[in-house]
Amino acid sequence: MTERVVLKLGGSVITDKSGGCTIDHARLREIAEVLAAHREIALVLVHGAGSCGHPEARRYRVDEGLGRDNLPGVYHTHAAVSRLNAAVVEALREAGIEAIGIHPLCLALAEDGRLVSFETRQIAGMADHGIVPVLHGDVVMDTLRGSCIVSGDQVVARLAFALGSRRVGLATDVAGVLRGGSVIPRIDREILESLDVGGSAKTDVTGGMRGKIAELLILADAGIDSEIFHVSQIGRFLDGTDHGGTVITRKE
Amino acid sequence: MTERVVLKLGGSVITDKSGGCTIDHARLREIAEVLAAHREIALVLVHGAGSCGHPEARRYRVDEGLGRDNLPGVYHTHAAVSRLNAAVVEALREAGIEAIGIHPLCLALAEDGRLVSFETRQIAGMADHGIVPVLHGDVVMDTLRGSCIVSGDQVVARLAFALGSRRVGLATDVAGVLRGGSVIPRIDREILESLDVGGSAKTDVTGGMRGKIAELLILADAGIDSEIFHVSQIGRFLDGTDHGGTVITRKE
Repeated sequence: MTERVVLKLGGSVITDKSGGCTIDHARLREIAEVLAAHREIALVLVHGAGSCGHPEARRYRVDEGLGRDNLPGVYHTHAAVSRLNAAVVEALREAGIEAIGIHPLCLALAEDGRLVSFETRQIAGMADHGIVPVLHGDVVMDTLRGSCIVSGDQVVARLAFALGSRRVGLATDVAGVLRGGSVIPRIDREILESLDVGGSAKTDVTGGMRGKIAELLILADAGIDSEIFHVSQIGRFLDGTDHGGTVITRKE
Repeated sequence: MTERVVLKLGGSVITDKSGGCTIDHARLREIAEVLAAHREIALVLVHGAGSCGHPEARRYRVDEGLGRDNLPGVYHTHAAVSRLNAAVVEALREAGIEAIGIHPLCLALAEDGRLVSFETRQIAGMADHGIVPVLHGDVVMDTLRGSCIVSGDQVVARLAFALGSRRVGLATDVAGVLRGGSVIPRIDREILESLDVGGSAKTDVTGGMRGKIAELLILADAGIDSEIFHVSQIGRFLDGTDHGGTVITRKE
């Protein structure tokens, strides 16, 4: 079995998070070039929603119960993040990468906001054949709430666990998890307790940096480390060299 | 639990099967009007690929093994039928139906051409909340072949079984299963043996009328009847009145 690498592109990395679905196509082209130079890796890509989907999710409150008045929110939230997904897939394909968009709404089932069904064997099959599946944070159906939002970070953790990935990277618009302007090189549950890691000030229904770390600590509990680094360091992450970011790990 | 009705729109009903992805938008609008008049029904829709996907599937032979040379066929086949899916969803939404496209490639896994994993609880949840999921025949990953084509008919049978549907309809461009120009009102395995039901003369990698009946007989074996009728009779099927078509059923 080829080593499968899970890489997440933060929503704020590939969209302008202040505006309504403003996609950063230039950034996507840059990322695609880097990924194209590492085509020997069996890669599974995940991206956040950024300004494509978060505003709709909040407007329709698709996270809090589904009824007559907010029913269209499932479509509109999904459609917004799917537009971003199509742009990511297009940028990768233009760089010669055999990318295909995979939508969590199509395949997942959640219970009270947590994924309880998420088939990954088709995704593994794609990665092993040289296809790069491109998933994303999405609205999904929920057995208790009707619908909910599943963050890209939750998708990353679920995929990494199911695919047995030993290399999990999250490219963000900061150099790592920061304290007083400096990168914290290593976080486990004990270190986290001593930190004050803030939520995001911008529109993000999925929890900002604190939510991200919580997801990755669950993954760390299962023995899978993950790495948070600046988007400019994707190549170094894929090369396995130092990227100056943060490793989320299990307490030794 | 609401009664869940599974309805399939044949690929030749909504595309011009002789040309390359020629979508019949006028036909889609007519169908959407009829469905909008039956909004009390929890409906799950499936459509065939018609001229959107079948040519790509044949050109790349995505049914026969996946390697370097035909790898792009997964994307191109899926993209073609997804274009048709988007047109179906758009026509339904313009008629006021809360439709969402669901792609088998995202969720399904096949083994030697047969679906072995196909989560349907999210689809049931949508139907029960008043969303109309719109699925389709698609290329999917296959544990033995790499990839394969799963027909809309196989998707219909799988869905109907999993959702416990008692009403399963297939709208086609003929009045039912024909013999000498007349509709055969009822087909079971014994009756089928006495018939000469032809394959399709047009481009269809999924087996034409014979393949359709084979899928529906598997469903009938499980105690679920299905009905094949002309597309103009969708309203009568949904009303539960006579549509002049063929019922596929278990031998009494």
